[in-house]
Amino acid sequence: MTAIAVIPGDGIGTEVIAQARKVLDVALPGYTATEYDLGARRYNDTGEVLPESVMNELDGHDAILLGAIGDPSVPPGVLERGLLLKLRFDFDQYVNLRPSRLWPGTTSPLADVKPGEIDMVVVREGTEGLYAGAGGVLHAGSSAEIATEGSLNTRYGTERVIRDAFERARRRDRKHVTCVHKSNVLAFAGGLWKRTFDEVAAEYPDVATDYQHVDAAAMFLVTRPQSFDVIVTDNLFGDILTDIAAAVTGGIGLAASGCVNPGRSHPSMFEPVHGSAPDIAGKGVADPIAAIMSAGLLLDHLGHGEAATAVTDAVAAELAERTSGEPIRTDEVGDRVAARVAGLLG
Amino acid sequence: MTAIAVIPGDGIGTEVIAQARKVLDVALPGYTATEYDLGARRYNDTGEVLPESVMNELDGHDAILLGAIGDPSVPPGVLERGLLLKLRFDFDQYVNLRPSRLWPGTTSPLADVKPGEIDMVVVREGTEGLYAGAGGVLHAGSSAEIATEGSLNTRYGTERVIRDAFERARRRDRKHVTCVHKSNVLAFAGGLWKRTFDEVAAEYPDVATDYQHVDAAAMFLVTRPQSFDVIVTDNLFGDILTDIAAAVTGGIGLAASGCVNPGRSHPSMFEPVHGSAPDIAGKGVADPIAAIMSAGLLLDHLGHGEAATAVTDAVAAELAERTSGEPIRTDEVGDRVAARVAGLLG
Ligand SMILES: CC(C)[C@H](C(=O)O)[C@@H](O)C(=O)O
Ligand SMILES: CC(C)[C@H](C(=O)O)[C@@H](O)C(=O)O
Repeated sequence: MTAIAVIPGDGIGTEVIAQARKVLDVALPGYTATEYDLGARRYNDTGEVLPESVMNELDGHDAILLGAIGDPSVPPGVLERGLLLKLRFDFDQYVNLRPSRLWPGTTSPLADVKPGEIDMVVVREGTEGLYAGAGGVLHAGSSAEIATEGSLNTRYGTERVIRDAFERARRRDRKHVTCVHKSNVLAFAGGLWKRTFDEVAAEYPDVATDYQHVDAAAMFLVTRPQSFDVIVTDNLFGDILTDIAAAVTGGIGLAASGCVNPGRSHPSMFEPVHGSAPDIAGKGVADPIAAIMSAGLLLDHLGHGEAATAVTDAVAAELAERTSGEPIRTDEVGDRVAARVAGLLG
Repeated sequence: MTAIAVIPGDGIGTEVIAQARKVLDVALPGYTATEYDLGARRYNDTGEVLPESVMNELDGHDAILLGAIGDPSVPPGVLERGLLLKLRFDFDQYVNLRPSRLWPGTTSPLADVKPGEIDMVVVREGTEGLYAGAGGVLHAGSSAEIATEGSLNTRYGTERVIRDAFERARRRDRKHVTCVHKSNVLAFAGGLWKRTFDEVAAEYPDVATDYQHVDAAAMFLVTRPQSFDVIVTDNLFGDILTDIAAAVTGGIGLAASGCVNPGRSHPSMFEPVHGSAPDIAGKGVADPIAAIMSAGLLLDHLGHGEAATAVTDAVAAELAERTSGEPIRTDEVGDRVAARVAGLLG
């Protein structure tokens, strides 16, 4: 019996997760879902972000499905560091997986890109780099203030995520991995990344490779996104590049992600890339596709390949029938995709 | 008499700088230019990157005009750190100025953006952050390897560049400054940036402000670049965002930049954002517009406002007559723009 911990979260998080659960209901019969009330509401009510007891409970699940957390009422960083990043780090979710495809029926802001032409996945490192929180401030608020941030990178952490990217590339048509860093300036971390990349690449002679500096990669994601297959990169660069990748493939409303612990020593977490969007919350107009696709990544991670493919196909069919400009009804999208998944799985 | 140090550099650097000099010849009569042979060629011939004696000579000039440096034959980082970043840091060029406009006659890869609609300037911090080189490696090449990079940020350095951005915004039509950082994760440096930004903003009640995380800003540069006026940001974020800004405004071939020391305690440096492009070097097909516009920024910095405006107008006229797809002749573009500038000033 598969046990899923569900964190609907704040704002549109609860709305889109309800749709993802409709899809899981048909794609993963018999799973159990336990809801956890975490996020801005709980923090504002109780001051609690993520109690240790909840951490332990979450750890007992096979996977976590998260909607979105955050609200302007909470000081920036509190929920990000205390909840999202704590889960990614403590559950060793070192593969932050972010696929981007330009689906038929969706429009890219780019003039010369046609649906079907963009199909990439960013394998973003999830447990190292500048996200380590290894910084400090002295003399805060005075003219003598200094603030530091440390990017911490290990061979261990770099190698395992690069290896994961090569494994994924091997299973894809184009079999190409682009390593992105900024080795001409960040010589220490960039050197580690490039050397490790080259060493791992030698074990995958069937996979083609290249290296790009992050500024060039950001530009190429706009000028020729079609050229990318798998990108492997550092935590912060991955954060930035995946938002560009989302932007050129129809926006953050369609962008799914998985914070994956490949060895399953702790649960992996699946979440749409978008935030809680308080401005449109409660109106039933949020696009649940990103959450549904995140549930698809969850299914794939847990070994339900057929169900995962059905979710992808159902989403593709849903998007293909969209008329641009037509308003989205969160509920109806969830109903339609779930019905299609049911049909596909027979 | 204005004394300009010219570093043509490598690859297309020499070709585009020749055009920028044609323009300076008519826009800044009587200036002296001293050429410095620096870059990959010199490094490969002599092992020298930037001798102290040359540093001292450069320091005696009013400004530096640089083409592009770099070649695949030189190990990555050597010229970047030893020349480009050394000049930016040692000459305290703390305002890395990068304007982006979508000129009539040029095409954006974005479908819904029309010429004239994008007009922004990124004020990128140039002397701090992760560019400090404050990192290290232990156990290199072993499975125990770690690599660190330190982002060093001071109130002093943050405040002066933010103040510069507000001064520039005040002189522009929309009078808007967007501060970009990643304060939800980089709480220490981001906190310093945000607090300093808010404090400086209070002194400029006529300038509107907002704050965006770098991932959101990267996305908005693709989905609504029209919304930006002045962006002020950290060194690394500025590096990435300006390549996106260049991409959406017709490419890096048009992107000019100035590494400015506003107090003029040392010379400022003006350079196209593009690199040495060895693949097209020597063919006379590189677009010299970025170099010419960089010379325009140089003129503006040295107080020749009328000449700077003439360069901008001449470039705008040149671009307006371009037929997309028609090959560029580096020489001819330089001749035409110089003739226009002469006409405008004459
Ligand atoms: C909310 C924030 C901490 C997070 C990140 O920076 O990783 C988000 O931007 C993301 O991409 O998932
Ligand atoms: C070449 C490199 C050191 C440089 C930078 O990172 O600043 C370049 O990308 C730029 O934007 O001028």
